[in-house]
Amino acid sequence: MASLTLDAINTKVLKCEYAVRGEIVTLAQQLQQDLQANPGSHPFDEILYCNIGNPQSLGQQPITFFREVLALCDHPSILARSETEGLFSLNCAFSYETKDEYGPAEFVFESIGWSTSFSSCIDAIKRAQQILDQIPGKATGAYSHSQGIKGLRDTIAAGIEARDKFPADPNDIFLTDGASPAVHMMMQLLIGSEKDGIMCPIPQYPLYSASIALHGGTLVPYYLDEATGWGLEISELRKQLQAAKSWGINVRALVVINPGNPTGQVLAEGNQREIVDFCKEEGLVLLADEVYQENVYVADKKFHSFKKISRSMGYGEEDISIVSFQSVSKGYHGECGKRGGYMEVTGFRPEIREQIYKVASVNLCSNISGQILASLVMCPPKVGDDSYGSYSAEKDAILSSLARRAKTLEDALNSLEGVKCNKTEGAMYLFPRIHLPQKAIKAAEAAKTAPDAFYCRLLLNATGIVVVPGSGFGQVTGTWHFRCTILPQEEKIPAIVSRLTDFHKGFMDQYRD
Amino acid sequence: MASLTLDAINTKVLKCEYAVRGEIVTLAQQLQQDLQANPGSHPFDEILYCNIGNPQSLGQQPITFFREVLALCDHPSILARSETEGLFSLNCAFSYETKDEYGPAEFVFESIGWSTSFSSCIDAIKRAQQILDQIPGKATGAYSHSQGIKGLRDTIAAGIEARDKFPADPNDIFLTDGASPAVHMMMQLLIGSEKDGIMCPIPQYPLYSASIALHGGTLVPYYLDEATGWGLEISELRKQLQAAKSWGINVRALVVINPGNPTGQVLAEGNQREIVDFCKEEGLVLLADEVYQENVYVADKKFHSFKKISRSMGYGEEDISIVSFQSVSKGYHGECGKRGGYMEVTGFRPEIREQIYKVASVNLCSNISGQILASLVMCPPKVGDDSYGSYSAEKDAILSSLARRAKTLEDALNSLEGVKCNKTEGAMYLFPRIHLPQKAIKAAEAAKTAPDAFYCRLLLNATGIVVVPGSGFGQVTGTWHFRCTILPQEEKIPAIVSRLTDFHKGFMDQYRD
Repeated sequence: MASLTLDAINTKVLKCEYAVRGEIVTLAQQLQQDLQANPGSHPFDEILYCNIGNPQSLGQQPITFFREVLALCDHPSILARSETEGLFSLNCAFSYETKDEYGPAEFVFESIGWSTSFSSCIDAIKRAQQILDQIPGKATGAYSHSQGIKGLRDTIAAGIEARDKFPADPNDIFLTDGASPAVHMMMQLLIGSEKDGIMCPIPQYPLYSASIALHGGTLVPYYLDEATGWGLEISELRKQLQAAKSWGINVRALVVINPGNPTGQVLAEGNQREIVDFCKEEGLVLLADEVYQENVYVADKKFHSFKKISRSMGYGEEDISIVSFQSVSKGYHGECGKRGGYMEVTGFRPEIREQIYKVASVNLCSNISGQILASLVMCPPKVGDDSYGSYSAEKDAILSSLARRAKTLEDALNSLEGVKCNKTEGAMYLFPRIHLPQKAIKAAEAAKTAPDAFYCRLLLNATGIVVVPGSGFGQVTGTWHFRCTILPQEEKIPAIVSRLTDFHKGFMDQYRD
Repeated sequence: MASLTLDAINTKVLKCEYAVRGEIVTLAQQLQQDLQANPGSHPFDEILYCNIGNPQSLGQQPITFFREVLALCDHPSILARSETEGLFSLNCAFSYETKDEYGPAEFVFESIGWSTSFSSCIDAIKRAQQILDQIPGKATGAYSHSQGIKGLRDTIAAGIEARDKFPADPNDIFLTDGASPAVHMMMQLLIGSEKDGIMCPIPQYPLYSASIALHGGTLVPYYLDEATGWGLEISELRKQLQAAKSWGINVRALVVINPGNPTGQVLAEGNQREIVDFCKEEGLVLLADEVYQENVYVADKKFHSFKKISRSMGYGEEDISIVSFQSVSKGYHGECGKRGGYMEVTGFRPEIREQIYKVASVNLCSNISGQILASLVMCPPKVGDDSYGSYSAEKDAILSSLARRAKTLEDALNSLEGVKCNKTEGAMYLFPRIHLPQKAIKAAEAAKTAPDAFYCRLLLNATGIVVVPGSGFGQVTGTWHFRCTILPQEEKIPAIVSRLTDFHKGFMDQYRD
């Protein structure tokens, strides 16, 4: 056997954990192979991957306009061909005469049958041409500027301005291969040793704990309050910050995930102001994970970017350092496989900005299709554009379906014995608490596994439903949770509810104290 | 000003340098802005970026077949449309009757005029359908397996087998966003502290020094011998390894770049055998940067993968750990902006393999377009395929032009006073040595810059040609070089030669001792 052994491996790698693709998922993949090789070998027909926010893997269709523009940018030589106009008019599903009378909510999207009869609808072609004009030499196959193509950053900055009603600077944008590399980049910058601390919510998305572990820093936890809908209390932030300082930790930054992952809460505006003031007072970089900004499902909450909040409080570049992470993987588009995203970096000294640029330049640039998609996501078709009707119909259909799925699953979970699930106000997840009987906890101990992992494993084996144990995200000691996405297609939800309910009843019958 | 200061930043980041996008490039970008704002403000009309292997930024066109398949995979709903067949038959530029009579070299590619008359040439459509069938749910917008889509890994493994005539295992393939993240991943695994050393050639591609610095390890240099065409001597490897060991460094791996960057040498097969034996004996992981495997320009040298060499010596999984890095950015395709690539990981224990997988999983997956392109690059159209004629004509035209450009630039450089340039046998670069006069070295000292950077800066200011000082790659103390790509379009080469020659004469006239 080759000579490299585990004791030669970076201990920071060994310590890193990433539950979202951990043991339960590996087991699920084995079961899937079983099912393919021996149909009927398990009490279910398919594996339902509710472990990760990966909408298109569960059947969600991409937004037509986005894909049209991407295809045209991938193969620009077809832009000049006569067939292209006919081919790329699919997306125009209503006539000029009627389009202003229909708002997005009332609009009935019927691409089949309507689509080919309106060949003048070619704004995907126009957009592709505009984008190609923004790329030096129209070269979609060239490395770009390490922050991303300037013209696309202009578009994104304009999109941020339209969203926030405050200025955004294209030079503050760093385009990245999804949000994960952007988070790693900031952790790499901020963590020099285990004395450098990053405050993270508990529960948190395990990218943060994994990245902090890989960079050898210290995760300083602050606990969200499950009893108040995963409320974020400033007193808790203060308490944990003081504790970390007393252990000699230099706390560099505060991570806030809004809308929350795995918790699904959407922060109230007043709460966001308190968080901004806390970071300003304590000199912490505010790392704002805002990748679920389009995913808000309740009428009484709205997404506000932390930069907008801080500007509305009168704070500028001089006052607070904020990094906003955005991704093309989430929202209504869910383009995970495209690996597009950006971070907007404000309130850093020029010499620090130079260091961020240097780290970005070592990886040359992010992929150009992802860059293009990020610009489309931040500047989608607008009222009056030819594609607006079909675009907004596709978007509204997805978002309203996600809201219904969240509510149905939440109600189902809350009807289970000993389960309590907070409302999913946003994002793509439910994070129910399971009050496990002592008998189950003892059975888990006997099986040498954590009680929540024990539950999730039995759930998978009985139903094919893949969820992630709460321990992967962090939870108050002695409480048990799991994270489940709201992403299975709507027609499958009743069957999922029924399988989950049956399993839980059986589980409780077996282990009830 | 926001409170974060340089002394709070990770010192490993501060120490990292990446010359390929360093100061000279920043100056070039400023000059380009000048030229746009004030045409005629400099003694040249355009900036020629010869600093980086980025073919399409300098006008190289993508391979049509690859882009057709990518576009169809981006927007699969057009696969079913009648217009698509007509649109995607551009690539078929010759008739069935004649195609077997023409080898690639003789084949005259004339897509304009010919292209639309052969509508039966649709293997791009077939390939796109095959690829979509390999993707679970045909979802090109979903996160894939963290190693990449299994079906695409099967294709790549088949391509490696066809290249090497030895088995390749799809489970050994990790698809990545270009080769750079793969290199970082291995460095992250192998470097735990400054006591962990990685042997790198000098000169080297600065990704390696940057990645080792970012991960806090020690670069153990071994010097290539310029006098023997950048020869790699095993005695030098032994000497440097012993020296590193004597300083208490645990040397983990040996980096070999073949074909060489920045040196352009192609290793002889016998030399590769010696390197394999050295790694085997010393228990070093062989990190084989093989991204220029398609870029060999001399008849007496061939590319051989290190895995093939080791297998041909009778060594298997048990004997040696080899990681082969490949990228879609180089070769004849030069698809840098797509950020596709892979590493083939052989000869590692299962528990180490698990750690590699874990690190890959923290970033979820690489971009799917890049994954698809990597599969196309490793399995392009074959003799008999409809697209083979046009594909191989495009490929041969690019590679033969690169060979001519390399030769012309090499000859031009060797005709300059005090300049000696080894032959570019492969890759995309020239790395000439400049014997700078003492007067120039003193002028550089007075300007507080390294002599090679001084030369490159004057060259840029006088000609608009952007090259990278040798100090960014490493060079024997007291010798001075620069790296220049062979990538400007062929019709521009005479003007480049003339500008370079004029500049150098003027420089020598000013500084000759």
